[in-house]
Amino acid sequence: MSVSWKDLVADKKQRQTASIPREWLITPPPGSVRDVRGVPEECGLLSPKELEITNTVDVELILRNLAIAKWTAVEVTLAFYKRAIVAQQVVNCLTEIFVERALARAKELDAHLEATGKVVGPLHGLPISLKDQISIKGLETTIGYVSWIGKYASRDAVLVEILYEAGAVPFVRTNVPQTLMWPETYNKVFGRTLNPNNRKLTCGGSSGGEGALIAMKGSPLGVGSDIGGSVRIPAALNGIYGLRPSYGRVPYAGSVNSMEGQDSILSVLGPLSNSLSGIKLFMQAVSAYKPWLKDPIARRAPWNEDAYALTEHGGGQQLCFGIIWHDGQITPHPPVTRALEATKAALLAAGHKVVDWIPYKHKDIVEVTYKIWTSGSDDDYKAVTTLTGEPILNTMEILVDENAVVPNDFLPIQENISAFKLWQLQKEKLALRQQYLDYWNRSVQISGTGRPIDAIISPMSPYGGAPPHGLNRSADYTAIWNTLDYAAAVFPVTRVDPKLDANKPPHTFLGERDQAHYAMYDPETFWNAPIGLQLIGRRDEEEAVIAMTEIVDAALKAGAAKARL
Amino acid sequence: MSVSWKDLVADKKQRQTASIPREWLITPPPGSVRDVRGVPEECGLLSPKELEITNTVDVELILRNLAIAKWTAVEVTLAFYKRAIVAQQVVNCLTEIFVERALARAKELDAHLEATGKVVGPLHGLPISLKDQISIKGLETTIGYVSWIGKYASRDAVLVEILYEAGAVPFVRTNVPQTLMWPETYNKVFGRTLNPNNRKLTCGGSSGGEGALIAMKGSPLGVGSDIGGSVRIPAALNGIYGLRPSYGRVPYAGSVNSMEGQDSILSVLGPLSNSLSGIKLFMQAVSAYKPWLKDPIARRAPWNEDAYALTEHGGGQQLCFGIIWHDGQITPHPPVTRALEATKAALLAAGHKVVDWIPYKHKDIVEVTYKIWTSGSDDDYKAVTTLTGEPILNTMEILVDENAVVPNDFLPIQENISAFKLWQLQKEKLALRQQYLDYWNRSVQISGTGRPIDAIISPMSPYGGAPPHGLNRSADYTAIWNTLDYAAAVFPVTRVDPKLDANKPPHTFLGERDQAHYAMYDPETFWNAPIGLQLIGRRDEEEAVIAMTEIVDAALKAGAAKARL
Repeated sequence: MSVSWKDLVADKKQRQTASIPREWLITPPPGSVRDVRGVPEECGLLSPKELEITNTVDVELILRNLAIAKWTAVEVTLAFYKRAIVAQQVVNCLTEIFVERALARAKELDAHLEATGKVVGPLHGLPISLKDQISIKGLETTIGYVSWIGKYASRDAVLVEILYEAGAVPFVRTNVPQTLMWPETYNKVFGRTLNPNNRKLTCGGSSGGEGALIAMKGSPLGVGSDIGGSVRIPAALNGIYGLRPSYGRVPYAGSVNSMEGQDSILSVLGPLSNSLSGIKLFMQAVSAYKPWLKDPIARRAPWNEDAYALTEHGGGQQLCFGIIWHDGQITPHPPVTRALEATKAALLAAGHKVVDWIPYKHKDIVEVTYKIWTSGSDDDYKAVTTLTGEPILNTMEILVDENAVVPNDFLPIQENISAFKLWQLQKEKLALRQQYLDYWNRSVQISGTGRPIDAIISPMSPYGGAPPHGLNRSADYTAIWNTLDYAAAVFPVTRVDPKLDANKPPHTFLGERDQAHYAMYDPETFWNAPIGLQLIGRRDEEEAVIAMTEIVDAALKAGAAKARL
Repeated sequence: MSVSWKDLVADKKQRQTASIPREWLITPPPGSVRDVRGVPEECGLLSPKELEITNTVDVELILRNLAIAKWTAVEVTLAFYKRAIVAQQVVNCLTEIFVERALARAKELDAHLEATGKVVGPLHGLPISLKDQISIKGLETTIGYVSWIGKYASRDAVLVEILYEAGAVPFVRTNVPQTLMWPETYNKVFGRTLNPNNRKLTCGGSSGGEGALIAMKGSPLGVGSDIGGSVRIPAALNGIYGLRPSYGRVPYAGSVNSMEGQDSILSVLGPLSNSLSGIKLFMQAVSAYKPWLKDPIARRAPWNEDAYALTEHGGGQQLCFGIIWHDGQITPHPPVTRALEATKAALLAAGHKVVDWIPYKHKDIVEVTYKIWTSGSDDDYKAVTTLTGEPILNTMEILVDENAVVPNDFLPIQENISAFKLWQLQKEKLALRQQYLDYWNRSVQISGTGRPIDAIISPMSPYGGAPPHGLNRSADYTAIWNTLDYAAAVFPVTRVDPKLDANKPPHTFLGERDQAHYAMYDPETFWNAPIGLQLIGRRDEEEAVIAMTEIVDAALKAGAAKARL
């Protein structure tokens, strides 16, 4: 190879820097400032109207203002673009920046609305950020691989085609970890993305750029992907909403991925947003364009209004939630337990039922998940990285010695196994899926509603919010639902408060990992970290999961309002 | 091992013989009689009413007569059971026989109807035959493995649970080839199933027992499975209807299978029947019981009446069909081409459009299919057969020397490959699926309807009907649709007629296989063999495929009626 991988990175970074309009450069706060969410308002780059637009978290309201031309698409795009570029300067969340293309698109939409009086589609004028794996024609997609610098897409991903048809304005692409198979966001091309709530903490991953950008209100709606938690982890760690749909609900075709051909536990695309209306409108809009006619993996599953009305869940009048307090392996840190307690209290106050949900075979399910992933991942990563000789990352930690050889501290490499052995793992996986489904069905005996439980409320992870960089080493609380293929949403509940969240006296430990986890917590380290929880429904229950998350969210907000009285 | 596998077979066969009521034994015709479909009427075992019942091929009518108690469930069950036992004596199509259990069930249904005036469910009183892999509590399931003699199910398969809820009477299980991975039906436990239209010919496979039984009118509706054609091959070769649904439409959980854990190209269950009403009622009834709440693989996809009304296909007023005349590899024998021509003429006469459908990457798709299957199949089969030392079958031919060592003549064994290499095959498969979908979508340019083609009409196989035993060695025309996961039905068109179907002069051969295939045909060998074709829709289009097959079927019948005028 004639060019070293470091030269490729230098060239790419130079091009990225050049893609930022110089007049949008700000004087960023010093690195010691942890919470940078106020910078967009303080830096002076955005006009009052631009702040009004970008501070509007309700996507439904943004779309209404666009549809009645209160705000033009150009105004909205420009406002979010400026704020995204501010975000980039404080948390390093972007990869591809293409201001002119986005503004030209917005201009077309404005012209169409003016000429016809009609919106182009349900997402008319909405800027949408995309994880750096969702191909846009003419742009590079690297998923953090140096070796894929210069890999330009010849075609839009099917999702992007649909977003264009629906009137959206794809406007930035966002950072990821190399290979996408990490719950943090760091790679050798674009570096590390920080958590805007506390920059000493990770923004999570793999859709970490999305999580950080949206928490900065630099995008009203973003799309990430989730194979083991990659939408839900950054959603929770940054304090926003996120949805992991079931396999085949959102079109994946044309997106770049690692471990392609791994057909057993599928990565799915899903939305992240500051509002549940964003999550819902995305799912409605995408299915309206019949992705199953364009993507061989997408299933024929239109948006189901009956399911959203919770017809199969007693109309949502009295739901029964099972609460997971711990997964039998690691007891969550105090702020997570406080969030669970607050949610339970809010649901009870709203007239719903809550039962304890005893973890069932979490360890077995998670173990088989990691074994399936790593059955061929080593060869997969090498096939790419050998193209330039770039290193395969084995940790997300900030290393003092960049060349230090460390073993993989998240998913240890498995010796290559045979296809037949992989089949045995996959067979085991299916048996566990059947057992879990039976377990769920048996809950009709404890729910008190005549139905099995309607949904599970679970920690998103055991950590008291986002851990310091490099220490987010478990996806156990999220990955289980990927393997079961259950629809799962993340919603924000609270944030770490040293006054409320002192560490507790040692409990009876569930094992060594639990003990080490306990020792890791102190409320000052996790200062200001948002705490999100998961709401998990059955497979293919995206509509019901969104509706039930709205119910939980409203109950929490009502409780918080009451507490302030 | 203390007991030899041959002893296990002798014991199992003895028990099977004992399960047949002695008074139902007939004097079968000599082996030289090829067409045995008349035996049930000739043998004297069935009463006139039993003949009337079993000669009723319209499942809807059978169900109506049961619902109004014109026929009792006991009468109907007894009639089909007797006819099934007659079929068993001439074509050897059954495995598990459980007369008392089925009659007891029928009696319960009659009592329920009499007491309540209501049917138990939409399949009230309907006897249903099941392939020997669909578990029934307390019965053995061997899928042709000697090693699984004595493997009693502790639980009904989810489909069986649903059939019971729907009021059906599972009443026999039917023969398969060892491992299920053959397009014929022969194993060391139950022997070989013959084609009732011509016993010198294969009944196809792997759901061959179903095909032969239903062609004998020994069952009004049966359930087979299809991973590469295993419903469609026996349906076509025996002259009946069959449907291969998309992945996850019919519950598979609790059924026994080979190659479990192979998660890429899935086996699916599907119905076979003498009537399209049987196919439709089965699909409607099963989805009404929400299999997705019981089976982790089943998708949330209720029966869609809009799709059945062909809303997305112009209401079915003017459809456009693409006809596959050959797959680019092997030119079908003359009767198949005649069936295609007759179907084309009937569709044109009925006002529909027909275009030639140029085969697209059939060879690539089929090759990757076989490679994925065989990536671990050898180890899979050995894991079972070593339990008793039974041989793994390598041919379906009638061997002169039973102990002859022959190489596999259908799916040659592949050296074990790594999980990563399997991923590469699966990646290639997905790319082909995308390309085929794009190809289908491009047909909007040739259809003349403003839509892409509505469905494909294709040979079921290149053979001029069922080949002699052991010579059905290609599933290329069916397997492609499994890999693409398109819904596909088989419908009967005609049967081989030496007067109409003389071999043609040699054509320009597509290759060596095509030349060998040409040389294999003569109309006397294939005497009386039924010819069925496939109608293929898009993924998850079961309802539309059934509706369009009804249209084609009606057009063919109208054409035949006209020809008789």
